[in-house]
Amino acid sequence: MALKIAKGGTVAPFIVMDVMRAANEREASGGDVLHMEVGQPSSSAPKAVLEATQKALMSDKIGYTDALGLPQLRERIAQYYKDYYKVSIDASRVVVTTGSSGGFLLSFLCAFEEGDKVGLTAPGYPAYRNILRALGYEPIEIPVGPETHFQPTPEILDNLGVKLDGLIVASPGNPTGSMLSRQDLQALCHYCDHNAIRFISDEIYHGITYDGPADTAVEFSDQAILINSFSKYFSMTGWRLGWMVVPDDMVRPIECLAQNLFISAPTLSQYGGIAAFDCIEELDENVAAYAKNRELLLNELPKAGFDKLAPSDGAFYIYADVAHLTNDTQAFCKKILNETGVALTPGVDFDSERGQHFMRFSYAGSFAHMQEAAKRLKAYLA
Amino acid sequence: MALKIAKGGTVAPFIVMDVMRAANEREASGGDVLHMEVGQPSSSAPKAVLEATQKALMSDKIGYTDALGLPQLRERIAQYYKDYYKVSIDASRVVVTTGSSGGFLLSFLCAFEEGDKVGLTAPGYPAYRNILRALGYEPIEIPVGPETHFQPTPEILDNLGVKLDGLIVASPGNPTGSMLSRQDLQALCHYCDHNAIRFISDEIYHGITYDGPADTAVEFSDQAILINSFSKYFSMTGWRLGWMVVPDDMVRPIECLAQNLFISAPTLSQYGGIAAFDCIEELDENVAAYAKNRELLLNELPKAGFDKLAPSDGAFYIYADVAHLTNDTQAFCKKILNETGVALTPGVDFDSERGQHFMRFSYAGSFAHMQEAAKRLKAYLA
Repeated sequence: MALKIAKGGTVAPFIVMDVMRAANEREASGGDVLHMEVGQPSSSAPKAVLEATQKALMSDKIGYTDALGLPQLRERIAQYYKDYYKVSIDASRVVVTTGSSGGFLLSFLCAFEEGDKVGLTAPGYPAYRNILRALGYEPIEIPVGPETHFQPTPEILDNLGVKLDGLIVASPGNPTGSMLSRQDLQALCHYCDHNAIRFISDEIYHGITYDGPADTAVEFSDQAILINSFSKYFSMTGWRLGWMVVPDDMVRPIECLAQNLFISAPTLSQYGGIAAFDCIEELDENVAAYAKNRELLLNELPKAGFDKLAPSDGAFYIYADVAHLTNDTQAFCKKILNETGVALTPGVDFDSERGQHFMRFSYAGSFAHMQEAAKRLKAYLA
Repeated sequence: MALKIAKGGTVAPFIVMDVMRAANEREASGGDVLHMEVGQPSSSAPKAVLEATQKALMSDKIGYTDALGLPQLRERIAQYYKDYYKVSIDASRVVVTTGSSGGFLLSFLCAFEEGDKVGLTAPGYPAYRNILRALGYEPIEIPVGPETHFQPTPEILDNLGVKLDGLIVASPGNPTGSMLSRQDLQALCHYCDHNAIRFISDEIYHGITYDGPADTAVEFSDQAILINSFSKYFSMTGWRLGWMVVPDDMVRPIECLAQNLFISAPTLSQYGGIAAFDCIEELDENVAAYAKNRELLLNELPKAGFDKLAPSDGAFYIYADVAHLTNDTQAFCKKILNETGVALTPGVDFDSERGQHFMRFSYAGSFAHMQEAAKRLKAYLA
């Protein structure tokens, strides 16, 4: 007799990873693929990160670190807030995590009780919803669109008809790239603090912006949990390294949780991470390359028929409304992959209600690939 | 107004990590420490692992891998079951995880519903209990002692008075090192399958045994979940790499969960892990060194007054009943650290009921340290 698979084992797949596998299989069997599906920089980690990691590999025992992370790394992250945001944060509030994924697990478990209601935008990063469900919380999808720049507002929250226990916000967001203004972020933070809603600020796309830097939520709330990662701006996806800045009274609870759930984040990655903050020039060159890709696609995609695009203020995504082209974006993306080799992510990954009418282009790849993809898409849809 | 800290944020610390910090602080302020507290090899990763990792660092983009792990690593792990255990396992059932910690999270979420009762031995690895609590399951402590070689039996389970949904067993176990015989492991697996109890076999100390190899639960149950890690035998703690072998019907649910909760295990560590299986000779030298330490301590500790010791068939631990020496093993360990520099772990980490009368010696360190520690303990307790 087979034993049960529990509710936690019935979460939806992270569809982009399935698309990536289909694309990889096409590649493995000799087909060419232009990867615009996965939110992963095509650049490697910065040179100084590779060097620091190699040095650690040669000289360090690569044992467990403190559950909260290497003290030097926590200090270096705190320093970055001073340098980049001009905000003073005590290193004791910095928690090194196993990617932003680890940060979500720790923060949700520490902030929410079984059944708690946590708001998140649709469209939005699918793992928020899926992790919340797997852990027994109730994700509350907040539909957003061009009216509010694809972000939530205090008014939307007031009219939601649900008492939220938490709210997850990403600015720049995935899949849209849309950003909150400084004033709007501040207003959201204050609304949440005033209404006893735990504000979780996913700042993973900070640094990748095209019209001025993003603001950090810790400026506006000392109850907010900030989650960030080395995967995007710092170009270190497979290193599985991230960090949080948490309220003072959460440090010890998070430490105990992390000791039990993770022991510590990968040690080699932590040594590499310390060096990452000295590579701003190299990293900003990556961002300049994204900007060039973005400009190209914002010009070319409308010519292919993708003319209803979300803001794309930051990150490396363009989210397109394709209701005039399909009612089944999963089939549509599969067909495009099969017939053109361009791998794209269907909107259903980000918005279970309206996603069949949307798709996401990731432009983290090379300029030549973006040019070729635009050419093929124009020819295919002509 | 401060927002709540949820139940998940109230789990007990992993006390050994706090002891380790106290020991590290003593070291940092100039004191000397003989580390017998933490279950961490003093050896580094095998040479070929370091070389393979360096090669990956130079040539690979170090991006995300498949959520289930690099195909070559999954194949290599399956091959290891053929070589070491003479058991044939399809690579499709192998899941690469972020340490055994990642395996516990994934398996618990996939196997258990909120409120499910999961049995574990006391004494036992504290994170089982703490992770289960953090996720909303009910850990059921099963007191075991010398009568049953510090392991559960079908009779004990029958007389528990609780209908279990799962059972976690480790052989060799932590903190005792005790092992189940092949017959007893088989009997436990069959009992669990017969009674619809999900058997979770923590095989993290396999390879570190002193009287014949350990048997794997997958031989006796196709419903069992096997959890293992590169941290102990393979001497790769800070790499945060482990694996599971799961029942066929769990592969896809675990894949979806892993996509959302982890994305993938650290990529550099996965490349290193592939090479680890070619380093058996070097790794068995580590085990020979543990055996020498073990023999020394089994001779010397009784002379210091530690004469009631659990079996220590495997792993690198000796668990001592110290009821004749103290009623407060936390204070006792702290005093020993302060006055002798020997860092030890109090039993309360492993057994919340009876732990005040027990303590754990880890002998994963160097022979010279073990000699010196034994000398100091004898002098201190004389």
